[in-house]
Amino acid sequence: MAGAAVEGDGAMEIVSAAPLETAGPDQISFVGNAKAARHAAESGAGCLVVPEDFDNSSGRTILRVCDPRSQFAKILGALHPRPRAVAGIHPAAVVAGSAVLGPEVSIGANSVVGERVRIGGQTVVHANVTIYDDVEIGERCIVHSGAVLGADGFGFVFEGGRFEKFPQVGRVVIGNDVEIGANCCVDRAALGATSIGDGTKFDNMVHVAHNCRIGKHVVIAAQTGMAGGCTIEDYAVIGGQVGLGEGVRIERGVTLGSGAGVLSHKIVRRGQVMWGTPARPLKEYLANLGNLARLEDWKVRLKAIEDKLR
Amino acid sequence: MAGAAVEGDGAMEIVSAAPLETAGPDQISFVGNAKAARHAAESGAGCLVVPEDFDNSSGRTILRVCDPRSQFAKILGALHPRPRAVAGIHPAAVVAGSAVLGPEVSIGANSVVGERVRIGGQTVVHANVTIYDDVEIGERCIVHSGAVLGADGFGFVFEGGRFEKFPQVGRVVIGNDVEIGANCCVDRAALGATSIGDGTKFDNMVHVAHNCRIGKHVVIAAQTGMAGGCTIEDYAVIGGQVGLGEGVRIERGVTLGSGAGVLSHKIVRRGQVMWGTPARPLKEYLANLGNLARLEDWKVRLKAIEDKLR
Amino acid sequence: MAGAAVEGDGAMEIVSAAPLETAGPDQISFVGNAKAARHAAESGAGCLVVPEDFDNSSGRTILRVCDPRSQFAKILGALHPRPRAVAGIHPAAVVAGSAVLGPEVSIGANSVVGERVRIGGQTVVHANVTIYDDVEIGERCIVHSGAVLGADGFGFVFEGGRFEKFPQVGRVVIGNDVEIGANCCVDRAALGATSIGDGTKFDNMVHVAHNCRIGKHVVIAAQTGMAGGCTIEDYAVIGGQVGLGEGVRIERGVTLGSGAGVLSHKIVRRGQVMWGTPARPLKEYLANLGNLARLEDWKVRLKAIEDKLR
Repeated sequence: MAGAAVEGDGAMEIVSAAPLETAGPDQISFVGNAKAARHAAESGAGCLVVPEDFDNSSGRTILRVCDPRSQFAKILGALHPRPRAVAGIHPAAVVAGSAVLGPEVSIGANSVVGERVRIGGQTVVHANVTIYDDVEIGERCIVHSGAVLGADGFGFVFEGGRFEKFPQVGRVVIGNDVEIGANCCVDRAALGATSIGDGTKFDNMVHVAHNCRIGKHVVIAAQTGMAGGCTIEDYAVIGGQVGLGEGVRIERGVTLGSGAGVLSHKIVRRGQVMWGTPARPLKEYLANLGNLARLEDWKVRLKAIEDKLR
Repeated sequence: MAGAAVEGDGAMEIVSAAPLETAGPDQISFVGNAKAARHAAESGAGCLVVPEDFDNSSGRTILRVCDPRSQFAKILGALHPRPRAVAGIHPAAVVAGSAVLGPEVSIGANSVVGERVRIGGQTVVHANVTIYDDVEIGERCIVHSGAVLGADGFGFVFEGGRFEKFPQVGRVVIGNDVEIGANCCVDRAALGATSIGDGTKFDNMVHVAHNCRIGKHVVIAAQTGMAGGCTIEDYAVIGGQVGLGEGVRIERGVTLGSGAGVLSHKIVRRGQVMWGTPARPLKEYLANLGNLARLEDWKVRLKAIEDKLR
Repeated sequence: MAGAAVEGDGAMEIVSAAPLETAGPDQISFVGNAKAARHAAESGAGCLVVPEDFDNSSGRTILRVCDPRSQFAKILGALHPRPRAVAGIHPAAVVAGSAVLGPEVSIGANSVVGERVRIGGQTVVHANVTIYDDVEIGERCIVHSGAVLGADGFGFVFEGGRFEKFPQVGRVVIGNDVEIGANCCVDRAALGATSIGDGTKFDNMVHVAHNCRIGKHVVIAAQTGMAGGCTIEDYAVIGGQVGLGEGVRIERGVTLGSGAGVLSHKIVRRGQVMWGTPARPLKEYLANLGNLARLEDWKVRLKAIEDKLR
């Protein structure tokens, strides 16, 4: 490992990786944070990847690195290589004749790929995925099972006491190195394209409505949903169960805490960290929480003042 | 277009529709609101569908109508007809022998249709849909991919330290012209039927528990869920990520804002507009938000009063 | 029925069960709560299963029992036996050669079962389920359609301006008698196992992230999600649309109300009943709600005091 020095038994044989609690003498584990550091002493791991300031007074065999989690990820990948998805179309998949698949694309069992879909090289579409017509996916993407890409956006015109469909004739365009979690939904645009930029990662059950534009290297945790026409700029980090109203703009590098709600057409400015519903800056959110916790006290104090003034 | 007069170049050739920002000289677009009106000047669109009060001092070619979005929807449908789903059962679908399908029904690839299911004419079931036994669907419905209709309701009896299944022997009955979004779940009733009325539209990932009764022309946005035995009357409009507790009744024409939560067995009266959790009338919700924003100020004032009285 | 005495016409013939409102003279129904008791008089049911204190002054034919809902569940199961899922692998399912299925396992149409998956006897996997490699499921489980078990956990390392996958090489281990609702997602662990204990029941669209450990006889309502590394101990009851942050611990017998949110790394102690976001004890939550409802009043009173002191 570049730049990492083994302290202790450099000849130790490590055959696999395991969590701190269950690792044995031929296994490697890692110490990612202060809490883990406290539990490190009890771990039976033969070797530990640790941060630079790790206290090794017990004389364990360790690898001291500046980012243990990141280094451990590399070791893990080397020790436990997961077999790459088999390239090619599973015989139980259904791929339209007009779909264009790049080299080494893998389409899982029972997945359905519509007309004129384009999928870039080395992308893996797991089992039971549905890709509607005219969706475009870049290279090296991963689409997990149950995801639905390109279903109709949710647009209607109310006329004569009933809802008529607003035609959804746009597309979905997904960049390179994107990961889409299980059971996510990305709707096609009414007109134009719903788009997801390079390197963006979705956890499970994320809902992207028609005409959203999501930038590059955005991370979105599970069960978050956005209404139509939202923009999320590059490097935003969106927690789980977040809700964005119509036409919301989340600027570059914003962090939205889990459960946050942003009202329609609001703009969250570059780099802000927002929590709560309606979402507000973290500091304000915490001050508000503090005040809410004091209401019971205020009730008593207000009464006492009134009694005094009577 | 009935009642619409072209101003400008009536002989202009329009070949397709496009969003305001990207439309070119042979494309038509529309101005749906004040914000769009401000951007209309910069649009390269050859023709614009605009509201009656649109300021056309720049002399563009326009179609002046009373409801631009609705008129544009019709133009869009005419310029970009999406091919109708092919009628018939896809060879990779699995349809039980006892299922009864009306004329021109389309069952997508890898969808599964259970025993005694009845599907009305012209209904489109997209790919990878699951319809359990005994579900009934009306005519001209659209069921998007990943939807699951008729799975067991979530009912248990706690006995002897464990949960035993409360049998879920009811059905799901869906009316005509209903649209069910991708990855929605509509559970069968324990007894009787979970029902959805004519013309109702669901966005993606909506969860309908056992024994809910949803009326006609109801609109429910994405990721909303309702517990068992809820009633939603006709023409209600339910936002995204809304939660309804057990046995809630939402009366005719109610609007529930996105993220609202309604406690079990509550009734929301006809026509009300409700927000927040627990949901309350919009006016009250906004007053409450206003007061919350003032808590920091109140803290200071309360302290000042106490100091004065000391 | 053990311990139940028929009052009235013991020779009455009951052929089926129905809800209180629709039951006819040859049908049985039940009175589960006070509200139902008020409607019992109008019911056309031939026989009613009622609680011990039921007022039968109208002289109906009744079965008096200590837990009507539980007894009725048994009668329902007997009167309306749902056909057991056919044992065996549906011809349209795709099951890896290395998967090991116990006796009488049923794999539904278009479901996909990965390599080295183990499924215990009598478990029913409904249609369109996806089970990734190396997942283990116990006996007598029910997995509803659209569920995805074993997709990659959501873990990344940020490096050089982009997110690299933290390898997800762990497993999913599910006990006996577990029910997984439609469109649920249970992610595999990064290392080790995401686990679900015996007798636990999930409603639809529940999201379980990597490395969560869920105990025995836990009930989780629809659309609830938990971030990585959460622990939920035995007999916890979790409402719908609940969100748990990373590493949360929910101790034995806790109840979390619907919509509750628990911040990362919090511990909810044994037996507590918690509501709201951030979740707090029910009593505190209700006091808080009460105070929130009084803010408008406080505003006026604070102003009045200041005027008096001016």
